[in-house]
Amino acid sequence: MPPELQTEIEDTRSQPRPTGCPVGSGLEAHLHKAVPVLDHGFVKVVDYMGDDASIVQAARVSYGEGTKKTRDDEGLIRYLMRHAHTTPFEMCDIRFHVKAPIFVARQWMRHRTASVNEVSGRYSVLKTDCYIPDPEHLGTQSKTNKQGRGDDILNEEDADRVITRIKDAGRNCDETYGQMLHPDVDLSRELARIVLPLNTYTEWYWKIDLHNLFHFLQLRLDEHAQYEIRVYAEAIALVIKGWVPLAWKAFEDYRLNAVSLSAQGVDCVRRMLRGEQVTHATSGMSAREWRAFEEAFGR
Amino acid sequence: MPPELQTEIEDTRSQPRPTGCPVGSGLEAHLHKAVPVLDHGFVKVVDYMGDDASIVQAARVSYGEGTKKTRDDEGLIRYLMRHAHTTPFEMCDIRFHVKAPIFVARQWMRHRTASVNEVSGRYSVLKTDCYIPDPEHLGTQSKTNKQGRGDDILNEEDADRVITRIKDAGRNCDETYGQMLHPDVDLSRELARIVLPLNTYTEWYWKIDLHNLFHFLQLRLDEHAQYEIRVYAEAIALVIKGWVPLAWKAFEDYRLNAVSLSAQGVDCVRRMLRGEQVTHATSGMSAREWRAFEEAFGR
Amino acid sequence: MPPELQTEIEDTRSQPRPTGCPVGSGLEAHLHKAVPVLDHGFVKVVDYMGDDASIVQAARVSYGEGTKKTRDDEGLIRYLMRHAHTTPFEMCDIRFHVKAPIFVARQWMRHRTASVNEVSGRYSVLKTDCYIPDPEHLGTQSKTNKQGRGDDILNEEDADRVITRIKDAGRNCDETYGQMLHPDVDLSRELARIVLPLNTYTEWYWKIDLHNLFHFLQLRLDEHAQYEIRVYAEAIALVIKGWVPLAWKAFEDYRLNAVSLSAQGVDCVRRMLRGEQVTHATSGMSAREWRAFEEAFGR
Amino acid sequence: MPPELQTEIEDTRSQPRPTGCPVGSGLEAHLHKAVPVLDHGFVKVVDYMGDDASIVQAARVSYGEGTKKTRDDEGLIRYLMRHAHTTPFEMCDIRFHVKAPIFVARQWMRHRTASVNEVSGRYSVLKTDCYIPDPEHLGTQSKTNKQGRGDDILNEEDADRVITRIKDAGRNCDETYGQMLHPDVDLSRELARIVLPLNTYTEWYWKIDLHNLFHFLQLRLDEHAQYEIRVYAEAIALVIKGWVPLAWKAFEDYRLNAVSLSAQGVDCVRRMLRGEQVTHATSGMSAREWRAFEEAFGR
Repeated sequence: MPPELQTEIEDTRSQPRPTGCPVGSGLEAHLHKAVPVLDHGFVKVVDYMGDDASIVQAARVSYGEGTKKTRDDEGLIRYLMRHAHTTPFEMCDIRFHVKAPIFVARQWMRHRTASVNEVSGRYSVLKTDCYIPDPEHLGTQSKTNKQGRGDDILNEEDADRVITRIKDAGRNCDETYGQMLHPDVDLSRELARIVLPLNTYTEWYWKIDLHNLFHFLQLRLDEHAQYEIRVYAEAIALVIKGWVPLAWKAFEDYRLNAVSLSAQGVDCVRRMLRGEQVTHATSGMSAREWRAFEEAFGR
Repeated sequence: MPPELQTEIEDTRSQPRPTGCPVGSGLEAHLHKAVPVLDHGFVKVVDYMGDDASIVQAARVSYGEGTKKTRDDEGLIRYLMRHAHTTPFEMCDIRFHVKAPIFVARQWMRHRTASVNEVSGRYSVLKTDCYIPDPEHLGTQSKTNKQGRGDDILNEEDADRVITRIKDAGRNCDETYGQMLHPDVDLSRELARIVLPLNTYTEWYWKIDLHNLFHFLQLRLDEHAQYEIRVYAEAIALVIKGWVPLAWKAFEDYRLNAVSLSAQGVDCVRRMLRGEQVTHATSGMSAREWRAFEEAFGR
Repeated sequence: MPPELQTEIEDTRSQPRPTGCPVGSGLEAHLHKAVPVLDHGFVKVVDYMGDDASIVQAARVSYGEGTKKTRDDEGLIRYLMRHAHTTPFEMCDIRFHVKAPIFVARQWMRHRTASVNEVSGRYSVLKTDCYIPDPEHLGTQSKTNKQGRGDDILNEEDADRVITRIKDAGRNCDETYGQMLHPDVDLSRELARIVLPLNTYTEWYWKIDLHNLFHFLQLRLDEHAQYEIRVYAEAIALVIKGWVPLAWKAFEDYRLNAVSLSAQGVDCVRRMLRGEQVTHATSGMSAREWRAFEEAFGR
Repeated sequence: MPPELQTEIEDTRSQPRPTGCPVGSGLEAHLHKAVPVLDHGFVKVVDYMGDDASIVQAARVSYGEGTKKTRDDEGLIRYLMRHAHTTPFEMCDIRFHVKAPIFVARQWMRHRTASVNEVSGRYSVLKTDCYIPDPEHLGTQSKTNKQGRGDDILNEEDADRVITRIKDAGRNCDETYGQMLHPDVDLSRELARIVLPLNTYTEWYWKIDLHNLFHFLQLRLDEHAQYEIRVYAEAIALVIKGWVPLAWKAFEDYRLNAVSLSAQGVDCVRRMLRGEQVTHATSGMSAREWRAFEEAFGR
């Protein structure tokens, strides 16, 4: 970050200014403080709008006087979450400054309902920090789940060798990048950057509303999400919990820790509750579904 | 608005709270103050995020250190607007409470990149304020422009009659609505409302980012926009001007008061500047385009 | 619809043309055929793109060779739906011509991820067909569910009176509209229309992708959706079933007939399956949630 | 592409099937034919919906009978484009299969109003084709335009050296990738890929409507767009021209080759047409704006 921006931001923090807008006191303490993620990354809240009360206020405009006094704020927020009345959650916005490896950024930016300003490698000479995984995260390809790493990790020797290779590859690309940008050569930045590897860090501002952020978190906190984006989602989750505690609790109960039962699953639960012994053969489910069902409800 | 919400909001206004977020001082004075529009409508800012400095900050993250010191904030904002680098403008958000007739709401909600919570006639008994146009706005159907009213207005006698009819129609629908909701009948609200006319007022919260708001304003401030939505756009424009003065000025110069010359138009201007006498016949334009071109540049 | 458009469309239907694009044979039979809905409305497919095979093809590009031969098309589509891998469903699009009352259109157009071209009352003199409910749909306001009609319907006498009132209100508005448009008065169309009631029919083209259409259907097929939009959703559902039968079946099993168990609900089911007697008091649920839970799984 | 998909597609092409949907005959010839771009990339149309007549049809529903007979299709399409009545253009959709380097994909996917299914490096072992620029495209960093390459290209010796370096960097990363995926190590694919450089090719399906595609083309056909994405835009432009010739021509005249005059620019043109000698000092423009103005209209 350019030094003068840094200075401006420190000025802002040291001189809070009065506003008539909702102020989420749980979030003020987090403002402009980088939460470290991975070896060189971070997430940092730089601005926000709204709080739990804004969600309630927006919902009440829809319900008019109809719900007056009948429910407290928490009950109303839980009702909204349970019934997928999602628009009131769109009234809250939050803006982050994020630093993450490019392969994480690529997954992140597939979420289209958000605003992004990213460092441009066409204008600027990029910093070439590279993400190097810790040995305990060097998982092998999963046997059961085709899209991720399994529970096994590389043995110490292989891990050492892999880490060395990743470091060497990064250093080599970085040198090439530097040589091509050298004033004697002066290759354009937009071309020189094409040799940088996907674990190079990049930075961006990211603004998103709370409804779409919950969607992002549901996908990226999932155990099947890639570890390297999941840790960003976890860092964000902590911030959100402090900002909108009622909405967060509702999200946990009705989305994050909820289980969706298919038509077949509902039928199986009903039969099991009537005392019937249900097996995969009589469940109407595929092998994979039955496995997930057993994990959720089995002995 | 339910009285308890009103009270909460007055509390908020009377006790500004400190924040580390950007505070747009030009907007704080407008917060929670209804700007009257038409006979019973209003727009009112209830929350916002960001200011001119947020746009600059977002753009600078893209440009990295490349633009440090080379441009002041105003120059950078004007550059962004001129070159349609629109994402930094998405970093600012604003939330309004709007009261407007349903036929205005129908045009308004065609803008899809915004968040809306509207009073629901399924939950609530609706207030049945109706919009009654002033005599000076009772324009006749335009002869030249198929989509609007022309410059002629009804004569006094016709105007009186039309206003009486609109009032009668509204009163009649309102009575029917009331009778169907009467406890002895107790028709469901979602059905009773179907007799209400399109000039009945409705209310909603509306949250939109600055880039999309400029798009809304460009379309709805246009002289071809229907008068009844244009006056809302004008009320909003005044608020925006106070909030982000640099962005507003750039919007005026490069969008609102800009003229887009077609390929044919560029060619005509070039020829005219070389001293050539260009006529409709030699312009390559349709009759309607030529008329617009002459209005913009003609003697 | 202007007569010449009608003619063009009949030409199209009578002379099918060859294409190298996917052709969903189940849908070709529905093309350009209006399915009647309510008293004057309809939905009609006018164009479409993709089919079940397009969803599979898009998913396979993501999975590369990894899933080759391991799953048939149906299994893959069910996997995508179960795990909310929604992007392949976006590869199918469908365009409808819809005629529905304005109060239905207002709910419909709250779905933002779709394209709409609606009849403009600024350009055209509107047809003034009005929706008149059948007596058996004249429900009273629900006592338990604040947003809709209950199971009770009006008695015959009240129903007659209500229908007469709705008809009178419509006729009266229609007359007023006609008088104001009369050449002697010539009020602009954009103003004259403001007296039309919300049960006036309007028409629009509506284009949406299959993922977003499923979301629309899930909300609008729900028993809490207003009857008058639910019947449109039902008419559309039949069309979709014929178009993408595999995706439709997956949607039914994993979305439409699925039940989402909250964290508390999952806990209750587990305890009940272990033989514990769970009551509302020990469930950790609100009264309303417990009622829904009992309905789904109770004796 | 998995061989069985290839086979299915060839089957489709060889056996066109009849449809009642609009068939854009100019596009049928392009279906499933890859247009080569850069050294290993391509774009290929795999599906589409609508044509010029669909745009007209959608617009006519809005205008009702009001425009019957008054305008031909071309005039109407030009009117829509000129006045930014963009929704009818959303009624046409097109789906491409694209193969391009990751740094191009990163710019491409910043366009949010589109649907994407990309090869996943978590499921699949990626092909590691790398983009190697031709010597004549090895531009140096622009002196005047901070975001791109200038008109100067590297001398032959430097060019050779740079190309060798880019090739070496790619080969080195590719080897590292292969070693980490070797069965003896078996690092998960999602981790192994992080060493791949940004010039590695990736593939995706991309579906977009015509309005948003025009926006993409306007930005990416611009002379300031990076060369490597511009050539993709050019390949797409040729396809679109054949598909919707009337819409394309209107897009060229009113968007692509149009010039937007700022408020200051309009004023200058007016003064110049009155014979006034306008200079930068009297223009009210910044230095950069004045330069662009002079380029467009100057001697």
